[in-house]
Amino acid sequence: MTEVTLNQISKTFGKQTVLKEISFQLKPNTIYGLLGRNGAGKSTLLNILTNRIPASSGEVQIDGQSNINNDAALGKIYLMSEQNLYPSRMKVFQIFRQTALFYPGFDFELAHQLTAKFGLNENLRFSRLSTGYHSILKDIIALSVDADVVLLDEPTLGLDANHRELFYQELMETYADRPRTFVISTHLIEEIAGLIENVLLIKDGNLVLNDSTENLLARSYAVTGPEKQVQEYTKGLNVIGHDSLGKLRSDYVFGKLDDERILPDTVSVDGIDLKKLFINLTNRESEVH
Amino acid sequence: MTEVTLNQISKTFGKQTVLKEISFQLKPNTIYGLLGRNGAGKSTLLNILTNRIPASSGEVQIDGQSNINNDAALGKIYLMSEQNLYPSRMKVFQIFRQTALFYPGFDFELAHQLTAKFGLNENLRFSRLSTGYHSILKDIIALSVDADVVLLDEPTLGLDANHRELFYQELMETYADRPRTFVISTHLIEEIAGLIENVLLIKDGNLVLNDSTENLLARSYAVTGPEKQVQEYTKGLNVIGHDSLGKLRSDYVFGKLDDERILPDTVSVDGIDLKKLFINLTNRESEVH
Repeated sequence: MTEVTLNQISKTFGKQTVLKEISFQLKPNTIYGLLGRNGAGKSTLLNILTNRIPASSGEVQIDGQSNINNDAALGKIYLMSEQNLYPSRMKVFQIFRQTALFYPGFDFELAHQLTAKFGLNENLRFSRLSTGYHSILKDIIALSVDADVVLLDEPTLGLDANHRELFYQELMETYADRPRTFVISTHLIEEIAGLIENVLLIKDGNLVLNDSTENLLARSYAVTGPEKQVQEYTKGLNVIGHDSLGKLRSDYVFGKLDDERILPDTVSVDGIDLKKLFINLTNRESEVH
Repeated sequence: MTEVTLNQISKTFGKQTVLKEISFQLKPNTIYGLLGRNGAGKSTLLNILTNRIPASSGEVQIDGQSNINNDAALGKIYLMSEQNLYPSRMKVFQIFRQTALFYPGFDFELAHQLTAKFGLNENLRFSRLSTGYHSILKDIIALSVDADVVLLDEPTLGLDANHRELFYQELMETYADRPRTFVISTHLIEEIAGLIENVLLIKDGNLVLNDSTENLLARSYAVTGPEKQVQEYTKGLNVIGHDSLGKLRSDYVFGKLDDERILPDTVSVDGIDLKKLFINLTNRESEVH
């Protein structure tokens, strides 16, 4: 069991601030969703976590030790990322062997099973794989390494619907066999909503939410009905967005509803799903309270 | 209006046959979905269409002329692909100018509007863009060039839900303003189902379907009910897949239902959506008739 702690991590590129004093702790054996709009800073954060790029300030601790120039600590973490780090002429089975040099507990048996299930030929060179199979190879490695913390940056990039489904299944199976911490960064939120136990939401370089999926959904509502009544009812609540259809309107509310309010017969209050919540929370206009 | 014709296009890499005698014609001003599992050969086909890689045999004709060493013909086509073809230090606005050298009708006004809508800073260098913004930049270029035929290979790779929605809207708007042919290769089928007028389905290097979305959905059915009755009813029909839930079963049927069959009261027949149809048509086991 490995604990990862981020203390006040900031990152600037030139004049641009990409991450602003981000602090959180990854609990052992938990599946996290790292969510945020394009360009929010998710990949930068994952690269800092694994010391691929340096933070401008702040510190990452892995079991109490800094992650800088610390192979023992970094061996407990694995980052599957969009970058293609392998020599283009290297074959799939050679990439497995190379990975095992840094992660000696690499599970070759699982890797072989997964290549068969995904239809990946282990004798193909990296350069010959399609976009989808690049992701598949990297996913297989990520599930087969013996790291306690596995970071998945867009694991389903370019995967077809059947392969995405298979990946989620295999992730849950290996998680049940050998619990560890996963952090999944993805834009296909509705597909992973059932998997993730905790949401980390980044907006414009700030960590604006760090809570369990259950808690988040328990305080998210759609208030639907005639425009005027809906707006009267939600006045003063934390409305993070709305949809309109003719004279009908849904206001999306994040946070506690006020029990004193009287709900008109024409207005209904329902829960919303994680994708809807996320889309509205990350709109430029909305603020998270 | 440009017509593109593929005659018996085949492609082998070493011992591996990736495309097998593919023939079809792209009608002017039509939106195509190019669908297929990972590794089916979609990107290879698009690269051959634009002469980025040579076919092993067969020919691509653009308005009756071969596309080989033919800049005039190739100027009528644009391919947005997963490959990053730009020098990493080049800035966004410089990439627009470079594109306009080959596509002199490049719509700078539309490109500027789109960078504002997508929140893309035109002064950033290509290397500084995130995965999602790489796709966004390439999408903006694809919508702004004056090509009659625009091929989009995974245009929403890495895009968040809001940006995917915005991209589909902008695609439909520019298509209405200036009708042309789009070919969209994607794995997010449910999201583009409403956009595409014609489906090209590739399976193991073969073109197995080329038909209008309307026709395809009109002959796709889910037959649902108790296992035994469902299987009796669908015996002899083209069952392309099934789902089970306890003793209940849905058989997915592609092709004409037999009018002579008697439908038991316990069994229902419904239409299915494009994603479901696609998943079942591209399962390893199923055959398309």
